[in-house]
Amino acid sequence: MLPEAQRDSLEVVLVSPRNPLNIGAAARAMANFGLRRLAVVAAFDPTWREARSAIGAPDQLLNAVESATLAEAVADRTLVVGTGTLARRKPEQRVVLLPELAPLVAQELARGGRVALVFGPEKHGLTREDLSWCHILVEIPTDPLQPSMNLGQAVAVCLYELTRQADPAPDSPPATPVPSSTSATPSGRLELLAGVIEEAMRAADYSPRAMQPANRHDLRLMLRRLTLSAQDTRRILGLFRRILWRLDHLGS
Amino acid sequence: MLPEAQRDSLEVVLVSPRNPLNIGAAARAMANFGLRRLAVVAAFDPTWREARSAIGAPDQLLNAVESATLAEAVADRTLVVGTGTLARRKPEQRVVLLPELAPLVAQELARGGRVALVFGPEKHGLTREDLSWCHILVEIPTDPLQPSMNLGQAVAVCLYELTRQADPAPDSPPATPVPSSTSATPSGRLELLAGVIEEAMRAADYSPRAMQPANRHDLRLMLRRLTLSAQDTRRILGLFRRILWRLDHLGS
Repeated sequence: MLPEAQRDSLEVVLVSPRNPLNIGAAARAMANFGLRRLAVVAAFDPTWREARSAIGAPDQLLNAVESATLAEAVADRTLVVGTGTLARRKPEQRVVLLPELAPLVAQELARGGRVALVFGPEKHGLTREDLSWCHILVEIPTDPLQPSMNLGQAVAVCLYELTRQADPAPDSPPATPVPSSTSATPSGRLELLAGVIEEAMRAADYSPRAMQPANRHDLRLMLRRLTLSAQDTRRILGLFRRILWRLDHLGS
Repeated sequence: MLPEAQRDSLEVVLVSPRNPLNIGAAARAMANFGLRRLAVVAAFDPTWREARSAIGAPDQLLNAVESATLAEAVADRTLVVGTGTLARRKPEQRVVLLPELAPLVAQELARGGRVALVFGPEKHGLTREDLSWCHILVEIPTDPLQPSMNLGQAVAVCLYELTRQADPAPDSPPATPVPSSTSATPSGRLELLAGVIEEAMRAADYSPRAMQPANRHDLRLMLRRLTLSAQDTRRILGLFRRILWRLDHLGS
């Protein structure tokens, strides 16, 4: 089990789940492994209502946060982990196997970070756009002949792994919060930075209009790969705001 | 993933499952983690038919072995592991947490043993009688406030753990079969031994008739706790057959 102080810091995010039984199973696995924060993105209304009205629906489901976009759901997260089978897709981020993810998540939680574990819809998993919000991707080691797991079971297996060795030694000191200058940057703030950089790109006529969606995608991935500290982000943001101001003034 | 040679040596046994979706989910988890042998004990007919006729039912389900009793299902197994929440029950066997089970199972498989992982019905889990066929019990570390897992999710988590580190090093030699004198004793042979000992007890007027079911239960547990080798079993069996012959002759 995770220490009490970290249980709200690991969030499960379900993107457009289609089967109410899977939503219920995901919430139940969270209860089994002592987690509380569930977010649902772009829920399909009848499905979502049915899942929440199920008899014995756990608190995780009743208190779940709904949002329209994944960007919104992970805005305050400092580490966003995408899940799924990557066999048919060339990943653009670092991919780790589930057993290797546990120490990374433990480290992020110990330094006071906030982690999201993101699961895609049952049929096709997370889209390329969804994955662009993720710092890192995780794969559950499965049989290549039958790699695709049921959603509820995948949630259970991931949460089991992430909490299996988390019992702190009885006399280990509590995790000390890291000074904010070196702490990681929440996803929402990275996106603010990306927006300012993009604006500067446009103001500088960096690329033709047709290229802008591709540039936005690459920029989002890059900012997450860099694992900027809050101070890094503040500095880069300040620089690009300055550049933007200059570009706008030159134009007038 | 387990090495190819061991994939048939780890069997999943479902005792009286009541929900066809759970049966399907258990079979699917087996497919995900590369296992093939599924046994179902005392299946409830309509449930079982429904599970097997589901669209996309994996081979594990179509090829499942049915048996009337758990004794029969595990008769050829050298290590029988019972699963479930033990909060409300005082266990009579050794209990290990799931992360600790993996090396024990790996060792048994490496020495050529055959392992069964036994799951009880959804509502109440394995009975005391069911557990008496188990050498060891395993508990998934869950939140004490919500310890009871969904059957399909519990199967997935157990199989994930038992296969997560099983990739053999590329140049490690294949597991060498152990000479039969030191190999473990299949469950069915232990029960043959228990039967002969019990017969000897009766012949010797060891205990009043009212005590015999309790003695049978304790004997079964003891024989499994001892982890007898095939040679031990052969010797003890020979001894008790001899005793029985003498007792029968004295009586005539």
